[in-house]
Amino acid sequence: MSTFETISQFARMLKNLDQWLQAATAHAQKKSFDPDVLGQARLAPDQYVLVQQVQAACDQAKYAAAYLSGQKPPSHPDTEKTISELRTRIQTCVDYLGTFKASDFVGAEERRVAPPWMQGNSVRGDQYMMRLAVPNFYFHVTTAYDILRHNGVELGKRDFIGVRNWTDFSDW
Amino acid sequence: MSTFETISQFARMLKNLDQWLQAATAHAQKKSFDPDVLGQARLAPDQYVLVQQVQAACDQAKYAAAYLSGQKPPSHPDTEKTISELRTRIQTCVDYLGTFKASDFVGAEERRVAPPWMQGNSVRGDQYMMRLAVPNFYFHVTTAYDILRHNGVELGKRDFIGVRNWTDFSDW
Repeated sequence: MSTFETISQFARMLKNLDQWLQAATAHAQKKSFDPDVLGQARLAPDQYVLVQQVQAACDQAKYAAAYLSGQKPPSHPDTEKTISELRTRIQTCVDYLGTFKASDFVGAEERRVAPPWMQGNSVRGDQYMMRLAVPNFYFHVTTAYDILRHNGVELGKRDFIGVRNWTDFSDW
Repeated sequence: MSTFETISQFARMLKNLDQWLQAATAHAQKKSFDPDVLGQARLAPDQYVLVQQVQAACDQAKYAAAYLSGQKPPSHPDTEKTISELRTRIQTCVDYLGTFKASDFVGAEERRVAPPWMQGNSVRGDQYMMRLAVPNFYFHVTTAYDILRHNGVELGKRDFIGVRNWTDFSDW
């Protein structure tokens, strides 16, 4: 479970998230409502709406890849309002993650990571990944999934994990 | 991010989950309702209720530790009905995870893992951890958190991650 493999897993999960958004669009069309209504859905009044959950999931993956490789993270402004725009945001992030090679993360675990919000403090790269990036990333993708499920979109655990069936892992 | 460190992170998140359940109990007492009502709450009619989310989170952690170390997983029957019983279940799982040492996971990444539900198929240990155990574990802890938030329990991202504040990582 190298840093590179974790970044690759983030990319896989973002592609799964894109599939859920496609299912959400199909669900809305079947029920004759505007799919972008789902973009403003949330599970608690002081939680992010779906649009923000997707933006945050992308950002967690992007910042982890940038910080752990010592690169400057690219700016992806939070301007999305529609499901279609969210899908483009996901693709932009997946494309960015795809620019990394395993060798970009040599020494990543010992690297000090100091995001602006830590206000001058820092943590080791391995701690950043394990205790911040991974839980935050899965928090946002899972909450995006749960918002869709709560609103009737037909999804299941196979869609979450991204597996065709539970006994065939031949493409892994 | 060794297998042992991932198991340690699961234990940390389960302790966070225990804190959320304590907050849920306090919330219910403040609002004068039975806290165990929350145990039967869910976000979609065909999703697990809170009790099952907690049981599943514990199981994902337990099975990962057992499979990746080549041990037989202990049986923890899903008999919990109350928040108090769920807290005991979490403690039982955390105690089990605490029995492992880093050396128990030597060779874990190359080990073949063949849970009964794979019906004779198997995946490598590193694939099992990265693509099944970690996403499934975070799916269940996040959904447990989201069920509580959806029902008004006052929790925030610091509670999810388990950090006192966002600029002090001196105890990490």
